[in-house]
Amino acid sequence: MQIKLSLALIAAAVAGSALAQQGMKPEDMIQTRQAGYKFMAWNMGKIKANLEGSYNKDVVLAAARSVAATANSGMGALYSPESGKDIGHVKTRVKPEFFEQPEEVKKVAVAYIREANELARVAESGDPAAVKVQFGKTGESCKGCHDKFRKDEK
Amino acid sequence: MQIKLSLALIAAAVAGSALAQQGMKPEDMIQTRQAGYKFMAWNMGKIKANLEGSYNKDVVLAAARSVAATANSGMGALYSPESGKDIGHVKTRVKPEFFEQPEEVKKVAVAYIREANELARVAESGDPAAVKVQFGKTGESCKGCHDKFRKDEK
Repeated sequence: MQIKLSLALIAAAVAGSALAQQGMKPEDMIQTRQAGYKFMAWNMGKIKANLEGSYNKDVVLAAARSVAATANSGMGALYSPESGKDIGHVKTRVKPEFFEQPEEVKKVAVAYIREANELARVAESGDPAAVKVQFGKTGESCKGCHDKFRKDEK
Repeated sequence: MQIKLSLALIAAAVAGSALAQQGMKPEDMIQTRQAGYKFMAWNMGKIKANLEGSYNKDVVLAAARSVAATANSGMGALYSPESGKDIGHVKTRVKPEFFEQPEEVKKVAVAYIREANELARVAESGDPAAVKVQFGKTGESCKGCHDKFRKDEK
């Protein structure tokens, strides 16, 4: 069901500027997408800590579902062209290439959504070894976008 | 399944300072929980916009699942006593009462988790009228905490 939904939503999730949310200021888009990534990073960090220490199936499953729900939430709508540069004190690390290479963005986004949903699925098993493998793949799919479309930290 | 999980996790989700995440700085706790609420507010806003305008079942379902996943994610761990006050430029609106009334916190947290999971369940139906009712209940459960434990905006 989760997987089915994610496929149905991939178009919306990855379409980026074409589906940019109406009525939302670009600075609010920047802050909202950064909030989503920050909260997701916290959940990824919990999974990592569980893999490296004492493994709690429920905690990992809840974290993995939060990561997947974020991936499925259609964050492409938070990337209008106007949100591609710093606005006052609101800074963004997105590269201009993000808005120039929609096909490439789609590719990395589809991979990320697929791996995140698979992470939530695998987490149901409660098998740390399987989760570890899929956690690695999910992290790689995050990195796939960072490497291409995110500027290095200043 | 989602509901079952949420019940299993309620203890972790609401325990607050008792389960504060080890190794996390209080200012990072403040920023991470605010990120979670901000991203959730975006998803609630999408549901509201769909109820008031053109209703897209997939968008509402994805948003509701993101809200529920956030509710189930164990944010109680982001409330150490040290995170109860402003730290440098990192401001928090949490009231001291939050740390003094754990039973009351538990009550509002349990209500919020229950309503958010129910929202995700009802969204599967694709019935705007049913979603509208449950969206209202979920909003009330958010307000239940805001009224008691969040300071007014300055």
